[in-house]
Amino acid sequence: MMTINMTLHTDKYQINMMYAHWVQGTLNQRVAFEMNFRKLPFGNGYAVFAGLQRVVDYIHGIRFSDEEIAYLREQEEQYAEGFLEELRTLRFTGDIYAAPEGTLVFPNEPLLRVTARVFEAQLVETAILNFVNFQTLIATKASRIKQIAPDDVLLEFGTRRAQEADAAVWGARSSYIAGFDATSNMRAGMMFGIPTKGTHAHAWVQSHETELESFERYAEALPDQVTLLVDTYDTLKSGVVNAIKVAKELEARGKRLNAIRLDSGDLAYLSKQARIMLDEAGLPDVKIVASNDLDENLIFNLKAQGAKIDSWGVGTKLITAADQPALGGVYKLVAREKDGAMVPVIKISGNPEKVSTPGIKDVYRIINRDTGKAEADYIALTEEQEVKNGDPLTLFDPVHPYLSKVISKYDAIPLLQPVFIEGEQVAKMPDLDQIRAYHREQLELFWPEHLRKLNPENYPIDLSLTAWQQKLDLIQRYKS
Amino acid sequence: MMTINMTLHTDKYQINMMYAHWVQGTLNQRVAFEMNFRKLPFGNGYAVFAGLQRVVDYIHGIRFSDEEIAYLREQEEQYAEGFLEELRTLRFTGDIYAAPEGTLVFPNEPLLRVTARVFEAQLVETAILNFVNFQTLIATKASRIKQIAPDDVLLEFGTRRAQEADAAVWGARSSYIAGFDATSNMRAGMMFGIPTKGTHAHAWVQSHETELESFERYAEALPDQVTLLVDTYDTLKSGVVNAIKVAKELEARGKRLNAIRLDSGDLAYLSKQARIMLDEAGLPDVKIVASNDLDENLIFNLKAQGAKIDSWGVGTKLITAADQPALGGVYKLVAREKDGAMVPVIKISGNPEKVSTPGIKDVYRIINRDTGKAEADYIALTEEQEVKNGDPLTLFDPVHPYLSKVISKYDAIPLLQPVFIEGEQVAKMPDLDQIRAYHREQLELFWPEHLRKLNPENYPIDLSLTAWQQKLDLIQRYKS
Repeated sequence: MMTINMTLHTDKYQINMMYAHWVQGTLNQRVAFEMNFRKLPFGNGYAVFAGLQRVVDYIHGIRFSDEEIAYLREQEEQYAEGFLEELRTLRFTGDIYAAPEGTLVFPNEPLLRVTARVFEAQLVETAILNFVNFQTLIATKASRIKQIAPDDVLLEFGTRRAQEADAAVWGARSSYIAGFDATSNMRAGMMFGIPTKGTHAHAWVQSHETELESFERYAEALPDQVTLLVDTYDTLKSGVVNAIKVAKELEARGKRLNAIRLDSGDLAYLSKQARIMLDEAGLPDVKIVASNDLDENLIFNLKAQGAKIDSWGVGTKLITAADQPALGGVYKLVAREKDGAMVPVIKISGNPEKVSTPGIKDVYRIINRDTGKAEADYIALTEEQEVKNGDPLTLFDPVHPYLSKVISKYDAIPLLQPVFIEGEQVAKMPDLDQIRAYHREQLELFWPEHLRKLNPENYPIDLSLTAWQQKLDLIQRYKS
Repeated sequence: MMTINMTLHTDKYQINMMYAHWVQGTLNQRVAFEMNFRKLPFGNGYAVFAGLQRVVDYIHGIRFSDEEIAYLREQEEQYAEGFLEELRTLRFTGDIYAAPEGTLVFPNEPLLRVTARVFEAQLVETAILNFVNFQTLIATKASRIKQIAPDDVLLEFGTRRAQEADAAVWGARSSYIAGFDATSNMRAGMMFGIPTKGTHAHAWVQSHETELESFERYAEALPDQVTLLVDTYDTLKSGVVNAIKVAKELEARGKRLNAIRLDSGDLAYLSKQARIMLDEAGLPDVKIVASNDLDENLIFNLKAQGAKIDSWGVGTKLITAADQPALGGVYKLVAREKDGAMVPVIKISGNPEKVSTPGIKDVYRIINRDTGKAEADYIALTEEQEVKNGDPLTLFDPVHPYLSKVISKYDAIPLLQPVFIEGEQVAKMPDLDQIRAYHREQLELFWPEHLRKLNPENYPIDLSLTAWQQKLDLIQRYKS
């Protein structure tokens, strides 16, 4: 498969900073950046990390080819030729640690860490944020829908309303990670091996003399797994009646009608009526698929009304994460090389929540051995040893310090795993089915109170006392 | 530049319908589809059509290569080999008419028409909707921002929050069409020739011992067009003070500081204070750039508060169209070949606004010769001649029939222009600067009442009496 050169998929300020580092001779300074987000989307209790496969592909593809060099030369007279020559041989030679795709992740904890020459670490910021922000957002939205309809078939149908082509295919993949069963997008199917589903459109019905003829012709051509769209003219008076006729014809040929699909009108009423009509016709195994601007709230309400829907085609609201179409993930410098050692750095801000937590950090998911459930995520500086040794931990909420407790019988699972070390990929990426299985295991680790759709209980994200003290010290130093 | 094969960027139901047409021998039946949307986004009075260049590139690239054929063979056992052979030679051989990019467009009028073999017309639906829906949405959002700040410099800064990579670059292009001045995305700059802008990030400041040192080093490396980000530690006490020092140092070298950038805090207060500090330092020509979750409403309010901001970096809210992240454009069958002639077809629906307007239609923008302003868009069947002859027109609102009037002194500008005829591209696509100029001319055609941001007056979209009567007749026929 051909791929596009994404090396310049970055903000101009990254290239300008790279240039300034090159001019000043600091391009090889080692730095550490961590990605995190500050706020969960949709009022959800967790997010589902996704986008790492895309990051890995991107990192491997970094190359300033003739076209990129020529563009930079032409568009910015200030760039010296020596800089452009330096870019020509640039490859990613740093380290990347990240949570595996499908991990449940939370605000203000590092999800991904890049440690590299500043020259490389700046270049990759924009693309990493672009990929991980979107894919994590859609996986999280899909997970909410999956929670409302855990036993139904969930279909991602959003391509026509997606925000351009990449959003359609990577959004389909993100949805699949979080438990969707299939996508309508054939290219996503081909790229990622996701099952694809689809039947026919209104246009198929309209391009025949009658609805019945159109159903018969469709079932003739594709007799296995026939689903018929029944709302082109009148759902109950025409569509379902004709679908039942075709189901009987299929039966006579030893085949069966798989499903009917409702795409407009009152889905609660129509599905209940259609269910009765199908059952009375001796077709209790014919399923009902519904679509039409669905999301987790509408599905929840349809279920509460007793709608008889087995399978949900979810489009616009999922693929655009319509109620919050961006995850605000950021990539912040946490340490830099000084006199041969990595020293922590902080960013102060007029917006208090934008103050960063300095230092290179690891995240541990603390599992209570008695319950098997996650108690908290514990963020510690990489040089701290107590978690690795299994020593008793003080779980301490920096925002509400009275919420502290000591835990001793625990397993500490490190969330950040090595992906690249010195530019070499050291972890084999799991396939999509492994990611889905891992995601299901992740959900099992959490109490339902953290997972519910409405007003979930906050899952504790705790900072080690050492990391917290270092942050306070650096704030003081910069304020004075 | 390498390109990706987008031929399977389509929904599975398109391939299934193509297969059923192939089985039934109807694959060569000629059909006409029209794209329109039903509702304007953001409460705006118009939309800005965009996405056509992307559609043209896509149409040229349609090819089922070995990879696509192998995928289809493997994933759907029902597809016969003869069908796959048919796909192998498939090229687009139909006609496409569309509005030029940058055109102001309105609900329920055709924006793009595909007339082709049903085999081809189905295949291209999904991708056309995906491209045009997103790009039109972003151009419309950008146009709202441009209207609020017509004389300021507008920068598209959204890549890190865009919905994956294509949204970032095509969204940058859409923003530029509607009047933005530059993008931060270097790949968009390279692909489309859009000017790129960017300075440095907080990380640049943090990777130096002091803010002043970081500013000095940056200005040393890139002395032309220096913009300094002043909010890393304390905007007024540190950032602006240090920026003024560097401005003086630049002056001594015969250079000048271009701007300072505010990225957090109270932008109204900080910009006013910073302006005073710069002016008092004898730097009235140093500009102030602001960013931080801006959109047209926030910019409007900042201006009302007297904020001293010359240039706006707009990210998330623009690139995701955050307050309405999808345009609901649809692609509906309006006519099909029957006994050698094209006959109109309709789609009835349980949702009344989803009932389509049958027949192949043209759209004319009716310009009053006395005022030079657009009076209405007039949708007529292609076979109607009165518009082409300049005969008096009855402008008739099908929803509110009392709003009818007759106009005789007018110019009728056809909106839909031929792009492909029998598979050959017949129109040279304009370059981006031509599109921008055309878009500005479009805005001049309309009364300000239709263009305002809040509660715009509805611009009339009128249907010819013939087209309206035909729609009523077909509804009656299907209902009886």
